[in-house]
Amino acid sequence: MEPIEKRIESVVDTILSDYRQERDIDRMHTLRRPDTEVIVEVISKLRRIVFPGYFRDKNYRIYNAKNNLSVLIEDVMYHLSRQIALVYESIGEENAQSRAQQVCLEFLATIPQVRAMVQTDLKAFYDGDPAATGMEEIIYAYPGLFAITVYRLAHVLYTLKVPMIPRIMTEHAHSITGIDIHPGATVGKYFFIDHGTGIVVGETTVIGDNVKIYQGVTLGALSTRGGQSLRGKRRHPTIEDNVTIYAGASVLGGDTVIGHDSVIGSNAFITSSIAPCTTVSIKNQELQFKARSGCNSDCDACKEAFWKNEG
Amino acid sequence: MEPIEKRIESVVDTILSDYRQERDIDRMHTLRRPDTEVIVEVISKLRRIVFPGYFRDKNYRIYNAKNNLSVLIEDVMYHLSRQIALVYESIGEENAQSRAQQVCLEFLATIPQVRAMVQTDLKAFYDGDPAATGMEEIIYAYPGLFAITVYRLAHVLYTLKVPMIPRIMTEHAHSITGIDIHPGATVGKYFFIDHGTGIVVGETTVIGDNVKIYQGVTLGALSTRGGQSLRGKRRHPTIEDNVTIYAGASVLGGDTVIGHDSVIGSNAFITSSIAPCTTVSIKNQELQFKARSGCNSDCDACKEAFWKNEG
Amino acid sequence: MEPIEKRIESVVDTILSDYRQERDIDRMHTLRRPDTEVIVEVISKLRRIVFPGYFRDKNYRIYNAKNNLSVLIEDVMYHLSRQIALVYESIGEENAQSRAQQVCLEFLATIPQVRAMVQTDLKAFYDGDPAATGMEEIIYAYPGLFAITVYRLAHVLYTLKVPMIPRIMTEHAHSITGIDIHPGATVGKYFFIDHGTGIVVGETTVIGDNVKIYQGVTLGALSTRGGQSLRGKRRHPTIEDNVTIYAGASVLGGDTVIGHDSVIGSNAFITSSIAPCTTVSIKNQELQFKARSGCNSDCDACKEAFWKNEG
Repeated sequence: MEPIEKRIESVVDTILSDYRQERDIDRMHTLRRPDTEVIVEVISKLRRIVFPGYFRDKNYRIYNAKNNLSVLIEDVMYHLSRQIALVYESIGEENAQSRAQQVCLEFLATIPQVRAMVQTDLKAFYDGDPAATGMEEIIYAYPGLFAITVYRLAHVLYTLKVPMIPRIMTEHAHSITGIDIHPGATVGKYFFIDHGTGIVVGETTVIGDNVKIYQGVTLGALSTRGGQSLRGKRRHPTIEDNVTIYAGASVLGGDTVIGHDSVIGSNAFITSSIAPCTTVSIKNQELQFKARSGCNSDCDACKEAFWKNEG
Repeated sequence: MEPIEKRIESVVDTILSDYRQERDIDRMHTLRRPDTEVIVEVISKLRRIVFPGYFRDKNYRIYNAKNNLSVLIEDVMYHLSRQIALVYESIGEENAQSRAQQVCLEFLATIPQVRAMVQTDLKAFYDGDPAATGMEEIIYAYPGLFAITVYRLAHVLYTLKVPMIPRIMTEHAHSITGIDIHPGATVGKYFFIDHGTGIVVGETTVIGDNVKIYQGVTLGALSTRGGQSLRGKRRHPTIEDNVTIYAGASVLGGDTVIGHDSVIGSNAFITSSIAPCTTVSIKNQELQFKARSGCNSDCDACKEAFWKNEG
Repeated sequence: MEPIEKRIESVVDTILSDYRQERDIDRMHTLRRPDTEVIVEVISKLRRIVFPGYFRDKNYRIYNAKNNLSVLIEDVMYHLSRQIALVYESIGEENAQSRAQQVCLEFLATIPQVRAMVQTDLKAFYDGDPAATGMEEIIYAYPGLFAITVYRLAHVLYTLKVPMIPRIMTEHAHSITGIDIHPGATVGKYFFIDHGTGIVVGETTVIGDNVKIYQGVTLGALSTRGGQSLRGKRRHPTIEDNVTIYAGASVLGGDTVIGHDSVIGSNAFITSSIAPCTTVSIKNQELQFKARSGCNSDCDACKEAFWKNEG
């Protein structure tokens, strides 16, 4: 046994001395950091506040609605303001704790507005998807509604200039849903996301009311080769009211405006503005058909297809 | 301290009065709802039943296989039938509890058939992927097999007309894998999904035997602008036996049939039927090549490439 | 109550006899299997080792850095070597336990090299993304950095020929991030992944230094119709230094080389080599514009757009 213990000790020593290089990755002495797990728990509590009665509390059962809500709000107030204080401290902010409490109260005061928006989203989901059998199914099962809800909450914190935490929130939703909405984006009422996997909505995107987007849509930057020099600049598009953007389409660039009531077809790649009330689609993608020789079956369908492709 | 407590109280009161608007989002009085976390636990128990010996029970170790299975089945019976009863109650179904037990038993009785299908899928995964080193690696690590297994279980509940729960199950798999198979879809034997992220298989899709699909494939609807008026109508395609659909391709529409033994190339966008035994690919995507001036290196490769692009 | 108990018993008996078919899926007697949950916990401990001070230990607080690291390393040594021993045993390897310890020590000894690589990745993320407000935000919130970190650790185990566990590790990251990097791939320094959902990097891919890839990029095989006969063969491309590959592009085939300093545009589909210092983009995707009649608004923008599209 001795040699292994020795070798483990030597591994520990090597890594410890490696820690002393003081690169960005070497922060062994920092004690006060935000805790992503606490933030994820806060999200689940906020979801219970936004959708009362839908999600059960595993820790206790409270039958009085007011008591139930009070407990939730106090809990969010305690944990979220503590996390905000930690990020304030980590960037050397003064009065971190009292400022964090202040900001957290301002955040909580906006919950009715957030709920009003989420109610419009819920309606848009139901109206837009023939597979939806009811509002409850959407609340329980649709990843898009979860992503939008988390985005709407995170966006409030972003506008209150809380660092890092809004992004941790939307990246949690990204991880659960495959939908990556930056908390800095601006999104109007009745926003509908179908399926959602692969969607990217960049930091400076502005989206109007009644907009629908499908899986794989990118609302992105034209080029980020400028890197940090582009920080804060408008890099992402404007999508006006009543626009639908089908699966796999990309709309790129800070000067690109998709005019209201327009429809962007699947896989379209848009880097300049589109007039209002316009349907944009890719001009006949040319396909190539070849009969396969691999098919040994003697079925009529194959023979017919073969002759059709030959002729 | 007082002002903060007061302000929290006022936040609570504002949200409480906001709850009284009786929108879809305002269901604070409903007590009996399904619990997505219980359903997720049921999925993990069903996986232990489908793949005996592969996934360990963290709560207890039972060495007798029959006892082990009995405990699992009773547990699933208890929790799943309770969740089914809750959704029945929420839609005002009579005899919710006894009907739920009945349906749950019918579901459990199909497990051997589900397992027979999953065994064919497992074989298709092994045969189709040169990176697979063995069956165990597929069972432990391949997201596609997980998504198909959950879909096959959820599909049984869907055909037994259980509301909401099948969709919660497949959306759990969607969240874990990025593969979104609606529980209403019909999928034949030997189904192979590679990588899988971004795959969408719509509610009324019909897939034959020996079909392979790759990441980013959509089997979707042509347009869902009709919204709820389209509910229950055939909106998604038919994929016949032995078809392969490569990454990023879309096959859309309820009248679209991909004939047996056909191959659909990457990124193809298909909105009408394809004859059997046909290979479909995008006609040479025209690419544009430009020498970059950004490259300062004096290497021969660069110079050669520069002249080639110029010439 | 009796009928239900009887029916449950009969379900149990049916499934038990179904288990006796000895297909790949029927392994009820195997006792010693790897445990994916333990491996996931090992990943989270390794992350604490790679990024000291960033991620809190929920079980205990240790203020002495050396003690903290010793506890972590011993814990990883115990659990990881046990999992490695289990997979060795399952393939009939001799001296499974001592070989597992040996390999685990070799793995732990490479952590400083892995950390040196991850530090370069972190820098590439910060330099490449104008939305990044600091290094900490990247460490806490960016899925790409998580995926790369897990890949770099898993790749060491892959090169040490540990079966199955490296793939379970990268598939965990795939599940969390939508980024699917096979542990067999070779990836140079300063690797940057933006957004990431839908990325696939195949087993035999070779990537140089300073490479950037965006969401939906596939570095894949041309065809895997050969299935298991292709195992071990070079099937995936080579990406040389300083290459950028934008969203949705595919680079396929074992003979395909993207020359250094080249840029591959969005959605490009590349199946043969590209010279160094070349910008590749899709030649004007032809778009089709139609005025929509659905727009009832009487706004000037619409009328203007209408006439523009007519003219």
